[in-house]
Amino acid sequence: MGYDAVELIRHKRDGGTFDADQVRWVIDAYTAGEVAEEQMSALAMAIFFRGLDATELSAWTAAMIATGERLDFSSLSRPTADKHSTGGVGDKITLPLAPLVAACGVAVPQLSGRGLGHTGGTLDKLEAIPGWRAGLGNEEMLAQLEDVGAVVCAAGSGLAPADKKLYALRDVTGTVEAIPLIASSIMSKKIAEGTGALVLDVKVGSGAFMKDLEDARTLARTMVGLGTDAGVTTVALLTDMSTPLGYTAGNALEVRESVEVLAGGGPADVVELTLALAREMLAAAGRGDVDPAEALADGRAMDVWRAMISAQGGDPDAELPTARHTHTVHADADGTLSRLDAMAVGLAAWRLGAGRARKEDPVQAGAGVELHAKPGQDVRAGDPLLTLHTDDEHRVERALEALAGGWTIGGEPTTGPVVIERVTA
Amino acid sequence: MGYDAVELIRHKRDGGTFDADQVRWVIDAYTAGEVAEEQMSALAMAIFFRGLDATELSAWTAAMIATGERLDFSSLSRPTADKHSTGGVGDKITLPLAPLVAACGVAVPQLSGRGLGHTGGTLDKLEAIPGWRAGLGNEEMLAQLEDVGAVVCAAGSGLAPADKKLYALRDVTGTVEAIPLIASSIMSKKIAEGTGALVLDVKVGSGAFMKDLEDARTLARTMVGLGTDAGVTTVALLTDMSTPLGYTAGNALEVRESVEVLAGGGPADVVELTLALAREMLAAAGRGDVDPAEALADGRAMDVWRAMISAQGGDPDAELPTARHTHTVHADADGTLSRLDAMAVGLAAWRLGAGRARKEDPVQAGAGVELHAKPGQDVRAGDPLLTLHTDDEHRVERALEALAGGWTIGGEPTTGPVVIERVTA
Repeated sequence: MGYDAVELIRHKRDGGTFDADQVRWVIDAYTAGEVAEEQMSALAMAIFFRGLDATELSAWTAAMIATGERLDFSSLSRPTADKHSTGGVGDKITLPLAPLVAACGVAVPQLSGRGLGHTGGTLDKLEAIPGWRAGLGNEEMLAQLEDVGAVVCAAGSGLAPADKKLYALRDVTGTVEAIPLIASSIMSKKIAEGTGALVLDVKVGSGAFMKDLEDARTLARTMVGLGTDAGVTTVALLTDMSTPLGYTAGNALEVRESVEVLAGGGPADVVELTLALAREMLAAAGRGDVDPAEALADGRAMDVWRAMISAQGGDPDAELPTARHTHTVHADADGTLSRLDAMAVGLAAWRLGAGRARKEDPVQAGAGVELHAKPGQDVRAGDPLLTLHTDDEHRVERALEALAGGWTIGGEPTTGPVVIERVTA
Repeated sequence: MGYDAVELIRHKRDGGTFDADQVRWVIDAYTAGEVAEEQMSALAMAIFFRGLDATELSAWTAAMIATGERLDFSSLSRPTADKHSTGGVGDKITLPLAPLVAACGVAVPQLSGRGLGHTGGTLDKLEAIPGWRAGLGNEEMLAQLEDVGAVVCAAGSGLAPADKKLYALRDVTGTVEAIPLIASSIMSKKIAEGTGALVLDVKVGSGAFMKDLEDARTLARTMVGLGTDAGVTTVALLTDMSTPLGYTAGNALEVRESVEVLAGGGPADVVELTLALAREMLAAAGRGDVDPAEALADGRAMDVWRAMISAQGGDPDAELPTARHTHTVHADADGTLSRLDAMAVGLAAWRLGAGRARKEDPVQAGAGVELHAKPGQDVRAGDPLLTLHTDDEHRVERALEALAGGWTIGGEPTTGPVVIERVTA
């Protein structure tokens, strides 16, 4: 049945709700080009103000999934679990997490993206490893999941093409920040990907998309509801993103730190969050009895990492690229580092070349920011505080501008626990 | 100076205000195609929810005017005054009003449009007169204003082209109903047209764009403010549109009724509103001492009408087209006609062929609805209530559907005075 796009836009604009038929029609007609881009952007803005209720949103998500293919991992000998992060600074968690969970007997099909803006992308990080390639066909992916247990690769264009089109539109029309549209965008891809269980890492704080705990909670609940409605066991953790995770933000820099975690070391916060997410993934996949800390300690996770990198053409023993220039910033006072702002560090890493402003831009494998202290640690005037890495010396100045006012020495540390809250169905 | 379109959309979306530079940039970049249609529609929807304050709106209107030419009537020997109606059913007022005001010594440069939807267009009505043409060049227009004193013609594409582009976009994106955008659309054209004084007829009621008195008052105040800011003496009347004006809705039907008014007869409500608007236009143009009732009574207004029609190629004595089919609806009870709904009559006239659904559709000169009774009049069962006119007999059924429930016989009449309220700067 056909509808009139203008009538539907006005209906939502004036606070009405859509039935499932109307939602399906909008998504299908938009995908087919019958609802014009300017109509969809007006509707997206109306949804920003009016929202979509749980029923509308489930229909919206299902309709987006139905525009593309849906993967099926039911032939695997193991259950599957995936993780999605809403993006943070220094958020390299996927790198140790995927092999760790695989080492515990749950397959991890992790379809990832490239970074845009101040948060890095998992694929950009792994591409710092010589030879590693992100593009796999569905058959290759399935085979690697069976053999190795973990795969991190680029999402094919066949999953929820409506979402791809809608996201590109939202990006240029100031309608990214609508919680129902964020939730359906993430969940349509994750549900289409075919995972049996899903753990969401919803970041909160200055370096996160959601600055505010209440907004993050709403997004988490909305996504958990959508996953549950679609038959995917879904749990969310709200986690802190007021300061970077670990001591690095960048591509090769984060790979190096992730390998430290897999070797049984690494920063406490990265280890803590990796284990917390691993426990959730294992429990959601029905393997709550397995302790991931053991698989990290005894090297099994590292073994899977090496196999995973090799299977995608990477050399796990290769030397990682380093930047041509470094510039170290020193503490200007004695005292406790009480604040180190995630957004400031993320912007600096981006400006140094670790991230991109447009989809087609290249990234520098060696660029980024290395921290020498984290909030809560004492520093003395003259101590190195952070080191900037870049291939282009001229980028340092704008990175330093981004960092200005980004830390406080003295006073009480303002950061809290890594895992703030758990959200379940 | 350049701005980022997405930043500006988000700024408005989040409740911010624009400065004059930002407004100018948006309008100019949109007109030049640098701000995309989908960005402007998202911004229009954000403005629907967030509004534009008086300062933003004056800048918005001035920016739209600046995208095109601005007419100049300062060379005329008489002052100028124009009228704009927000559109109603049976609203033929321009036809007697323009020659009447001209007969009183004030020139009337009336740039009009064609009808779309249930309200008729002044040009469609005049085009029912054999030979009459709507398209005049600026020089022809100026000459006719000097010689005849009144001109009703099509607005050239040179006036506020940004408005034309934006209106077409709003029409397909559900963003027509934003008061600041309605006000700036109307006023940008009227100010660019170069009139010295402007009287706004803001309709309120079921057949009007504004159903609600408070909304109509807001629109009227907004437009009066914009006109005043631009140096045009501007006054608005809020007038009743719960029932059609006069006894006709259609093209030739309304011309015939207008000529009756110019001949000193015609329906009381049409005469009353014509005189009320004429008094406002004369006063606003500095001729408040002249009584338009005299010019109507002594035939001077009719003389100008004949000269005005002739000057544009029309034959004021030609027989007007009539529709091939008529269908009369009779009263089904005795009593006072207490309600006759303007929207029902407007929709019926539209469906009979008097109006168009798309800009490129033709209209029927003879089609429309003729009333035999107005609210407040007593009727008896079997009396003719209204007659439908159309060239296509098959259109009658859908017109009757539009009229179903459109009147009430018995009870107290629900319509009030023609002129509800006067709004000044």
